[in-house]
Amino acid sequence: MTLSKGKSNCMIDVKGVKVGHVTLYEKMDEENTICTGVTAILPHPDNLFNKKTRAAKTVINGYSKAAGLVQIEELGLLESPIMLTNTFSVGAVWQGALQYMLDQTKEIGDTTSSINIVVGECNDSYLNSIRHQAIKPEHAIQAIKGASSDPVEKGAVGAGKGMVCFGYKGGIGTASRVVSTSNEKYTVGCLVLTNFGKREEALFANWDKMQLDTPDGSIIMVIATDVPLYDRQLKRLATRCAVGLARTGSHIANESGDIAIAFTTANTYDHNAGTSIESMTFLRDDHTIMNQLFQAVIETTEEAIISSLKSAETTEGRKGRHLEKAPL
Amino acid sequence: MTLSKGKSNCMIDVKGVKVGHVTLYEKMDEENTICTGVTAILPHPDNLFNKKTRAAKTVINGYSKAAGLVQIEELGLLESPIMLTNTFSVGAVWQGALQYMLDQTKEIGDTTSSINIVVGECNDSYLNSIRHQAIKPEHAIQAIKGASSDPVEKGAVGAGKGMVCFGYKGGIGTASRVVSTSNEKYTVGCLVLTNFGKREEALFANWDKMQLDTPDGSIIMVIATDVPLYDRQLKRLATRCAVGLARTGSHIANESGDIAIAFTTANTYDHNAGTSIESMTFLRDDHTIMNQLFQAVIETTEEAIISSLKSAETTEGRKGRHLEKAPL
Amino acid sequence: MTLSKGKSNCMIDVKGVKVGHVTLYEKMDEENTICTGVTAILPHPDNLFNKKTRAAKTVINGYSKAAGLVQIEELGLLESPIMLTNTFSVGAVWQGALQYMLDQTKEIGDTTSSINIVVGECNDSYLNSIRHQAIKPEHAIQAIKGASSDPVEKGAVGAGKGMVCFGYKGGIGTASRVVSTSNEKYTVGCLVLTNFGKREEALFANWDKMQLDTPDGSIIMVIATDVPLYDRQLKRLATRCAVGLARTGSHIANESGDIAIAFTTANTYDHNAGTSIESMTFLRDDHTIMNQLFQAVIETTEEAIISSLKSAETTEGRKGRHLEKAPL
Amino acid sequence: MTLSKGKSNCMIDVKGVKVGHVTLYEKMDEENTICTGVTAILPHPDNLFNKKTRAAKTVINGYSKAAGLVQIEELGLLESPIMLTNTFSVGAVWQGALQYMLDQTKEIGDTTSSINIVVGECNDSYLNSIRHQAIKPEHAIQAIKGASSDPVEKGAVGAGKGMVCFGYKGGIGTASRVVSTSNEKYTVGCLVLTNFGKREEALFANWDKMQLDTPDGSIIMVIATDVPLYDRQLKRLATRCAVGLARTGSHIANESGDIAIAFTTANTYDHNAGTSIESMTFLRDDHTIMNQLFQAVIETTEEAIISSLKSAETTEGRKGRHLEKAPL
Repeated sequence: MTLSKGKSNCMIDVKGVKVGHVTLYEKMDEENTICTGVTAILPHPDNLFNKKTRAAKTVINGYSKAAGLVQIEELGLLESPIMLTNTFSVGAVWQGALQYMLDQTKEIGDTTSSINIVVGECNDSYLNSIRHQAIKPEHAIQAIKGASSDPVEKGAVGAGKGMVCFGYKGGIGTASRVVSTSNEKYTVGCLVLTNFGKREEALFANWDKMQLDTPDGSIIMVIATDVPLYDRQLKRLATRCAVGLARTGSHIANESGDIAIAFTTANTYDHNAGTSIESMTFLRDDHTIMNQLFQAVIETTEEAIISSLKSAETTEGRKGRHLEKAPL
Repeated sequence: MTLSKGKSNCMIDVKGVKVGHVTLYEKMDEENTICTGVTAILPHPDNLFNKKTRAAKTVINGYSKAAGLVQIEELGLLESPIMLTNTFSVGAVWQGALQYMLDQTKEIGDTTSSINIVVGECNDSYLNSIRHQAIKPEHAIQAIKGASSDPVEKGAVGAGKGMVCFGYKGGIGTASRVVSTSNEKYTVGCLVLTNFGKREEALFANWDKMQLDTPDGSIIMVIATDVPLYDRQLKRLATRCAVGLARTGSHIANESGDIAIAFTTANTYDHNAGTSIESMTFLRDDHTIMNQLFQAVIETTEEAIISSLKSAETTEGRKGRHLEKAPL
Repeated sequence: MTLSKGKSNCMIDVKGVKVGHVTLYEKMDEENTICTGVTAILPHPDNLFNKKTRAAKTVINGYSKAAGLVQIEELGLLESPIMLTNTFSVGAVWQGALQYMLDQTKEIGDTTSSINIVVGECNDSYLNSIRHQAIKPEHAIQAIKGASSDPVEKGAVGAGKGMVCFGYKGGIGTASRVVSTSNEKYTVGCLVLTNFGKREEALFANWDKMQLDTPDGSIIMVIATDVPLYDRQLKRLATRCAVGLARTGSHIANESGDIAIAFTTANTYDHNAGTSIESMTFLRDDHTIMNQLFQAVIETTEEAIISSLKSAETTEGRKGRHLEKAPL
Repeated sequence: MTLSKGKSNCMIDVKGVKVGHVTLYEKMDEENTICTGVTAILPHPDNLFNKKTRAAKTVINGYSKAAGLVQIEELGLLESPIMLTNTFSVGAVWQGALQYMLDQTKEIGDTTSSINIVVGECNDSYLNSIRHQAIKPEHAIQAIKGASSDPVEKGAVGAGKGMVCFGYKGGIGTASRVVSTSNEKYTVGCLVLTNFGKREEALFANWDKMQLDTPDGSIIMVIATDVPLYDRQLKRLATRCAVGLARTGSHIANESGDIAIAFTTANTYDHNAGTSIESMTFLRDDHTIMNQLFQAVIETTEEAIISSLKSAETTEGRKGRHLEKAPL
């Protein structure tokens, strides 16, 4: 049941999705290096608050500082970009994304409700002088504004700049699949921020053990699709990210923040609809395509993780640490 | 089964707990008023990261931007102050609390793991010009540094400065109870940030209907105790906050972020223990005192909510809005 | 915001819903009395497997042996009657309900999938010789077959025969509310099986303390409605049952199995639709009626509990125990 | 980080654990064959109600009729055998296990509380005439009474008699690992009931596609260990079962009931302790061994699944269906 890849084999194959990166890199002194960034995923090009997307999340391991997950669970909606960054920049990135959304939408916090900002993070402190908190709200705004529907840049870029994966340089990865029946054709895209694993754990390569003094790491997995689903079903997609993750070799380490978020560009929710009733058309759970969608999530997650390694160049970080490009 | 009140009938009756407020109030122009703040709850006077407290949370309704809940769920530990503020200041307060903890603990993000910051929020945009984001990280630091074990100031103070409760001025409330057997004596304290309800919904007063154009509101409820419990048991305490809340008249409105967090000062967890095994002594679930602890949570939550009204003075906010002190 | 009652002020005001009771009562000897029963709730008169109803559940306290909740959570569907009985009869009632559904639907377990049976329970061992397991699968079938749309019999009947509530005779209670706007009119019905509380805890009566040696008790709350909602929204209705429960005086005792299930007769799911896509029309979460629906759940739950007491006659049980009718 | 196998490489390597099978097989006529069974897992040889074990569960996909999970979640305790059987026998097996426990423990339902029975199931209707409900409560009792600490019989035996895995004959599988440090030595055992997957999905074999008309299937995974942990930690172990499952090739199919339960024989809970306080010694989450325990869960789950295939003989079932032994 191996599925066809999307045109660019990356998340932006889901029509309308945009991705932007801001990367910071600066050797400050012998000890300190800024080696980090921000990545923004926009579900569509319109106002994300006014045109919300159906979404769901799952927490595979919750050693995580992710923000914004509570409201996704309650309402099944996403109304902001999904922001990715390092662990200590959740606050700054949250604030930047909020500022961007407030600037776009004068009513928020004035004549209409508040807004929920979503931020995922991994700990890049092996390479990055994370305590310096180099990322400012402006970097988040810049990542959002710079987001495009061009094929996603992968590897040591954006939030992935300082990440470590399987003892080699990790970062941003992405992949996509097309699922089709005689009548329908859907795309599933995955984007990951990879920061986990030891060399000897990789199941897709035969690497020797080499003990880096890296802490247990994390992964954020984001699934975008255009399949008409609703939030309960999207949660089921998000759950399958764990399968793709498991197949790369992760054991979902003790100190990992392994989080998956899934959204669909179908069935958007108009904040200002002015109606009290809405209709939704969606796939039935017993549709034969449902298992293929699960398969698409698994395949894209697995391939996205490996792609983050393939694209990430050798990087020098704080304390003179080198992290090599994976021999793939 | 009405229980005795603690000495000061507030959260600091739980030995070691400290509470601090920073309040911002400034009429900017005809339209705009800064009317907001930050409240910090410190479980004990020592380094909160190095000496973590057992904790749990429950989400009663998840229209909430609370940060830090995912890790509490996974690890059952609290390692930061619990910060309360307005909805759009989660990022700034998160960053301030992080900065404080980094300053206190040089190893975080350098030689040891990262840290999880907990922030709860309610939407004070009826009175406060929330889009101005008046709160800066420094205010969070100031609230933490100013925290003391003096009886907690209640009403329109700290994070409660701009809140609305049952159509009157709400804010910070607190209460405590003592639960004892022949051998043991424990204290349960509750602190709430109240921002919910219509006048006619109040079950503790006979108020006429008056439609204020306030959005559905929220409440954050924090339970502190010195009872030796572990995280699963603390979750059961947190769950009972909903009972106290319900009895005041809340219907857990559609757009409410109703969150409860419970922690105990017993059974702390030493980050640097240097051992791989630990022991914990705790009450059995079938202890006759367990139902009294539930009762204490219910009573303190209910009374804390009412106390927030009793203490909150009439306040003028943005757009010339007045919010009256409740006639209690 | 007090709402109008339904025509019969009981669950069958939701069109199509049927309720059936089977009651067993027999003094066996000085020590033993069979004093128990089964109650069946049918969401509609058609085949419940072929025409599934959207449903959700919440576990308020999980000291419970309820069966069938896992699948409701995953799929958001109910495909069997909701059965209520005593704690030790979950197996027998499960089997009876299964047999009934198999007899009705030859394809289950042969050419189509399996079926999920839902059973809730409370522990009636104060009055009932529960170890005798007097209930057989046939009693469950009989309760289903005898279900009707007549006003529901309340009190010491069906699964309620042996239950204890606030130290008086409890059992089955029910109530309904009508929620309407200019265009729409919906009904919310609640049916409860009450088995919790001490006399002095009642908030709706002024009863003296009297220590019966009854264990902590439980409650099953079932919400039926005809409002077009989907499973996530139904979960939010179910959550509000806790508010009604809290207002009667329950503290959600340590050993309670407090469970709420909500289903809607709108938006049914055709097992044999032969299509892969479906459409659903439902209320938006921000519909002004949503808070009224929450209110309806709260009011019906509270009134249903009290109605179980009002209707339950003094009952004699095992070991010569008498349980008085509540003075209401 | 491949770990050593336990002495018998099966679940009973965890000292005290006992496993029993009852297998039913009978060709009734051309159409119908009884091909099913019951498996009982006993955490230790003593009274399971009086000496409860710490336990946790996770629902990976909830198309499942498993019973008893609600109370495990609330109390973190297991007080019955874990019973495995076919989907339509949950009621009968529940009743049999209850009867066994009642016979062993005269106080249950009389002078002390009720008891929670745990039953997991998979749908064996491809081979078994499941609608006949051949399994009676007696078979459950027999499986419990026959349980022993001998190496576990695997394959088409007990609850596994009629199961299908990866398009070949599945059933019962088991494996174990030893995790040790300089001071400590622990055992992790896994027992699975396998009933999922298509041939071409297997990642451990190179099998051609062959479409059997089998429904999406399920798996029950039970982890036994002697590591001193508490319920929150056991839940983290249970979660890692999904990793082992994923690595065999499962995509956690739409209609799967994929459930994991973990218990430890350390830190048992004495129902009749007569004290109100207890102490527990357990591994810290940051113990270096924790990741090895996760690894042990993953390895034993993966190997247990494959072992179920290796041991299961070609079996003939209803409608003349043959299910071949996997070529492993």
